Amino acid sequence: MVPHLTTSLTGPLQDLERLVLDRRPEIERWFRSRFSEHEVPFYSSVDLRNAGFKLAPVDTNLFPGGFNNLNPDFLPLCVHATMSAIQKLCPDAQKFVLVPENHTRNLFYLQNVATLKRILEGAGLAVRVGSLIPDLAGPTEFETAGGDRLLLEPLRRNGNRVGLEGFDPCAVIVNNDLSGGVPPILAGLEQTVVPPLIAGWSTRRKSQHFHAYDTVAEDFAELIGIDPWLVNPVFSQCSAVNFAEKEGEDCLAANVEYVLSEVREKYAQYGITEAPFAIVKADAGTYGMGIMTVKSADDVRNLNRRTRNKMSVIKEGQQVNQVIIQEGVYTFEDVDGAVAEPVIYMIDQFVVGGFYRVHNARGKDENLNSPGMEFRPLAFETDCHSPDCAGAPGDPPNRFYTYGVVARLANLAAAVEIEEMGVRADEEAAALAATA
Amino acid sequence: MVPHLTTSLTGPLQDLERLVLDRRPEIERWFRSRFSEHEVPFYSSVDLRNAGFKLAPVDTNLFPGGFNNLNPDFLPLCVHATMSAIQKLCPDAQKFVLVPENHTRNLFYLQNVATLKRILEGAGLAVRVGSLIPDLAGPTEFETAGGDRLLLEPLRRNGNRVGLEGFDPCAVIVNNDLSGGVPPILAGLEQTVVPPLIAGWSTRRKSQHFHAYDTVAEDFAELIGIDPWLVNPVFSQCSAVNFAEKEGEDCLAANVEYVLSEVREKYAQYGITEAPFAIVKADAGTYGMGIMTVKSADDVRNLNRRTRNKMSVIKEGQQVNQVIIQEGVYTFEDVDGAVAEPVIYMIDQFVVGGFYRVHNARGKDENLNSPGMEFRPLAFETDCHSPDCAGAPGDPPNRFYTYGVVARLANLAAAVEIEEMGVRADEEAAALAATA
Repeated sequence: MVPHLTTSLTGPLQDLERLVLDRRPEIERWFRSRFSEHEVPFYSSVDLRNAGFKLAPVDTNLFPGGFNNLNPDFLPLCVHATMSAIQKLCPDAQKFVLVPENHTRNLFYLQNVATLKRILEGAGLAVRVGSLIPDLAGPTEFETAGGDRLLLEPLRRNGNRVGLEGFDPCAVIVNNDLSGGVPPILAGLEQTVVPPLIAGWSTRRKSQHFHAYDTVAEDFAELIGIDPWLVNPVFSQCSAVNFAEKEGEDCLAANVEYVLSEVREKYAQYGITEAPFAIVKADAGTYGMGIMTVKSADDVRNLNRRTRNKMSVIKEGQQVNQVIIQEGVYTFEDVDGAVAEPVIYMIDQFVVGGFYRVHNARGKDENLNSPGMEFRPLAFETDCHSPDCAGAPGDPPNRFYTYGVVARLANLAAAVEIEEMGVRADEEAAALAATA
Repeated sequence: MVPHLTTSLTGPLQDLERLVLDRRPEIERWFRSRFSEHEVPFYSSVDLRNAGFKLAPVDTNLFPGGFNNLNPDFLPLCVHATMSAIQKLCPDAQKFVLVPENHTRNLFYLQNVATLKRILEGAGLAVRVGSLIPDLAGPTEFETAGGDRLLLEPLRRNGNRVGLEGFDPCAVIVNNDLSGGVPPILAGLEQTVVPPLIAGWSTRRKSQHFHAYDTVAEDFAELIGIDPWLVNPVFSQCSAVNFAEKEGEDCLAANVEYVLSEVREKYAQYGITEAPFAIVKADAGTYGMGIMTVKSADDVRNLNRRTRNKMSVIKEGQQVNQVIIQEGVYTFEDVDGAVAEPVIYMIDQFVVGGFYRVHNARGKDENLNSPGMEFRPLAFETDCHSPDCAGAPGDPPNRFYTYGVVARLANLAAAVEIEEMGVRADEEAAALAATA
């Protein structure tokens, strides 16, 4: 089962898909060359929106959950890619502790942890799960949504190392987005930590990611000769917003107007008659929290109390004061009348699978990654590396290949983004040392 | 469908399998470390023999055919592994010419070429097939055993490059074992050639491979604490044999006796009551040519004319004068009463699949890789990276994982072997330059 594209405006996208298929060898060489220049994230997932006339990433997750939603037939791909990633990042390590989110009631998330553990074990690693849950008294077994049994053990600090009772790992694999900041137990470890803690949401900003993505998308667009807008959402940002106190509204309104006018111009250029919209998101937000859809600058003035409350606090109770205003990309894919958006998974530089987030209760201009489990996952039926060049654009293997290409652009942007964060952190540390 | 092990002597092998499963993280780390020290062959296939009490490689092919025999479900694994190999060997290349064997009447071989082409294209390479067939007048389409259409084009030399009409490739992928020597058209190219021509059978020797394998097997055996003999066939060699002229018989007889006596000792040690046997093979032989089974030193004296003829000439009409005498490893796997031996495929450092060579007309002490297509392939049903540690040794996923481990030992030995050949070739070139 594959979602239908329910827009007639598929001309530009089918052109894009055709171009991506035709220029495949150049595109793959370009990726090889770019990925050899940067340290690729250990793993990532990218939310795409497919408007028919445009295909773009709207969020890149460096601590992806949802591995349980992938087609189990392709787990061997995850295993191969993990072997490759480990070979690059920490070839000497064999014992790993996997540090998940603290959700123990989200049985789907626990299933994700069990799946990740199986993938890591498939790559021949010895893996145990070390939990940050403060009141986890001792090793505790949970049953996941898939019926697997998963043992969570309390993570313990010992000098400059973390470990479990009777288990001293060589490396730490983090599947916790660190929205609440880097927990002291993980700070300053001598063990390899993958991904680096700097990639957590206490330091990461969506605007920095999309800033890096701008350059990647431009380079890619030049490579295949397209308008970069076809794969890149316009965005802007505000950095002194307080929804609760109604501060920063002017900045918000001005930037919403800027984004909408840019989109309006593009829509006119391509003859798109839909209404432009924008998404306002917490710049460090995740889990679908702190997000709203706006269609005019007025929409961000005079927000009602409920929306202001919703927008002011995100995961782990963090206050929102930086926001990104991103072009809304319609999702014109639909499954049985429900809106669907693709999520692509990568390990190392490899696309390992994907699924559709299918949402009955949401519109084609809304965020589908809601808190909780309201969406229904629909695993891709084929892998993302087997386009059928004789087939039509829009055929699932071709559409999936194109998804994989755009998702890898976002992955490359994440690599650049983390690198730049590392440089900034080093500079700050040096400045601090100089003044000390 | 999975072959049955038809021997009761499975104790030591089940011990080996149990050990391999239990020590998996150490084994995988060991492979990561070893493979990072050597340039892994681009691709390879390894013939294994599974005697129940012993599991060992008996031949390692660096220009593997038979990709058409793999389970098509796992072609995405081949694609991932190829992406990884290309990233290491020639990241900048995007256009490749694939140079196959000259067999145009073996439709299964042509199917292998079509499959390889699909895998390379899956990795995003532009691939055309450049044939060495002398009388191929122009581009000619063939239909393969699988019904695919395959275009062979005459390979052309242009200065220090090869290419096809209107196609100037960046790299050459060789699927021709070069038994007849390196064709002048491929010598001294400025393009990257993968695998290196030195790996062809005009320079390669089985004895050198198994010499390298001795060290690898010993290191591995030490790692997991086993007798290296359990994964390593005893071998010896003779280098001045002429079967047609009955020269070198004494050397042959002495070495057969040496190998058999070593095996006899091991059989006694492990309580194995089967009769030891040895395989005499052309040291540069391939395609199952120039091979015979012997059970005593007398067997190599007084060979009849037919056997002498069979042993004296191998593929491409090459004369045999170097032979390897290798411990025969019984194959105690059987499918519906027919003898079966596993063949494992690797691309880069990854096991990508395998199949059983099933042969009705051969015995458990005979070579199953006969000229032509007398064997029936049986693709592995699962990949080789998903052992079920809770399952019993002998369960297919566990047996396949163990096959993959032993095959990777042979792959590692091939890496060392090619490296040593390169060093020798450089030394010879330097010596030649010094005397010039």
